[in-house]
Amino acid sequence: MPFSRITLLKGKTPDYLRALSESLHQALVDCFEVPLTDCFQAIHQLSPEEFLFDRHYLCGPRSDDFVLIAITAGRPRNSEIKKAFYGRLVELLATAPGIRCEDVMVVITTTAIDEWSFGNGLATMVNDLET
Amino acid sequence: MPFSRITLLKGKTPDYLRALSESLHQALVDCFEVPLTDCFQAIHQLSPEEFLFDRHYLCGPRSDDFVLIAITAGRPRNSEIKKAFYGRLVELLATAPGIRCEDVMVVITTTAIDEWSFGNGLATMVNDLET
Amino acid sequence: MPFSRITLLKGKTPDYLRALSESLHQALVDCFEVPLTDCFQAIHQLSPEEFLFDRHYLCGPRSDDFVLIAITAGRPRNSEIKKAFYGRLVELLATAPGIRCEDVMVVITTTAIDEWSFGNGLATMVNDLET
Repeated sequence: MPFSRITLLKGKTPDYLRALSESLHQALVDCFEVPLTDCFQAIHQLSPEEFLFDRHYLCGPRSDDFVLIAITAGRPRNSEIKKAFYGRLVELLATAPGIRCEDVMVVITTTAIDEWSFGNGLATMVNDLET
Repeated sequence: MPFSRITLLKGKTPDYLRALSESLHQALVDCFEVPLTDCFQAIHQLSPEEFLFDRHYLCGPRSDDFVLIAITAGRPRNSEIKKAFYGRLVELLATAPGIRCEDVMVVITTTAIDEWSFGNGLATMVNDLET
Repeated sequence: MPFSRITLLKGKTPDYLRALSESLHQALVDCFEVPLTDCFQAIHQLSPEEFLFDRHYLCGPRSDDFVLIAITAGRPRNSEIKKAFYGRLVELLATAPGIRCEDVMVVITTTAIDEWSFGNGLATMVNDLET
């Protein structure tokens, strides 16, 4: 149910973006209780004038490979699940496309289950419970 | 009070985008308790490398016309209102610009009324109550 | 801890964007309890077909300089802090890059502290408390 909006500096290859997308999704599947086919992502490639980040705040040094992943989640998850996800995510991104763990920032926003419609004009998760 | 961020694959005409914008706003007015002039929307047109979505998860098949509408709402609304909005939205989008109901995904994020400033440096909805 | 996503019409100079970024960050530091180096911002420059806003709803008239600032905050703040921030923000933006107060809209979304990872695969704010 999550939707991820990924922001990074432009200049990466399609292969790099694909690996980034796949590693993020695999981490969600492995540790965030997300089904394998539940994949929805938007990637915003910005110029240096458009993407500003401190190189050292609470972690660093951050490089030009810095990626900020904003995830809208469909229901609350406990801290243990979130921690496991953060750890798995940097592990997979280090392998492919090869992003240093200092360059991976995540922020999660949590919604309610009736706030999602996956199509057909239905409140998908609520209607499912009723049928 | 809602602000809508619309994501879709690039390649649509300005007329198509205008119809998409108008149908979304009309659905909000008709069923989500939104005033007629309360219209704030951003449209992100992405390449296939930048916009990834499963073609079949919980609905489908999704086509290249798939649109993901992320709405930041100003206050809580009940499930009946959300359901009515989802239904009205796909109805209007099917008419103009002609989007199949399988291709319309919505996610709503709810905020508090003091989290909005419509201008002039004021917490608009809170200050209104006080004057 | 906030992450700000700024949306405006394209056509501004890099100097304008830099001043916008700096004034926003300064207002967060001055009035929103944000540390000086806690700066994370993405700027989306859209075409008129992609960025739609009413010119008069609850404030105005809005011009082509209109900017919508969506802030994801890391923890709840009270109304007084938000009001002070809105006021300081339009004050600073009026000075640089010179944006009229009618053209500044803000919406804040609040998350929980375990929903942020600043890097290294850690739930930064939660792990800090434990060590």
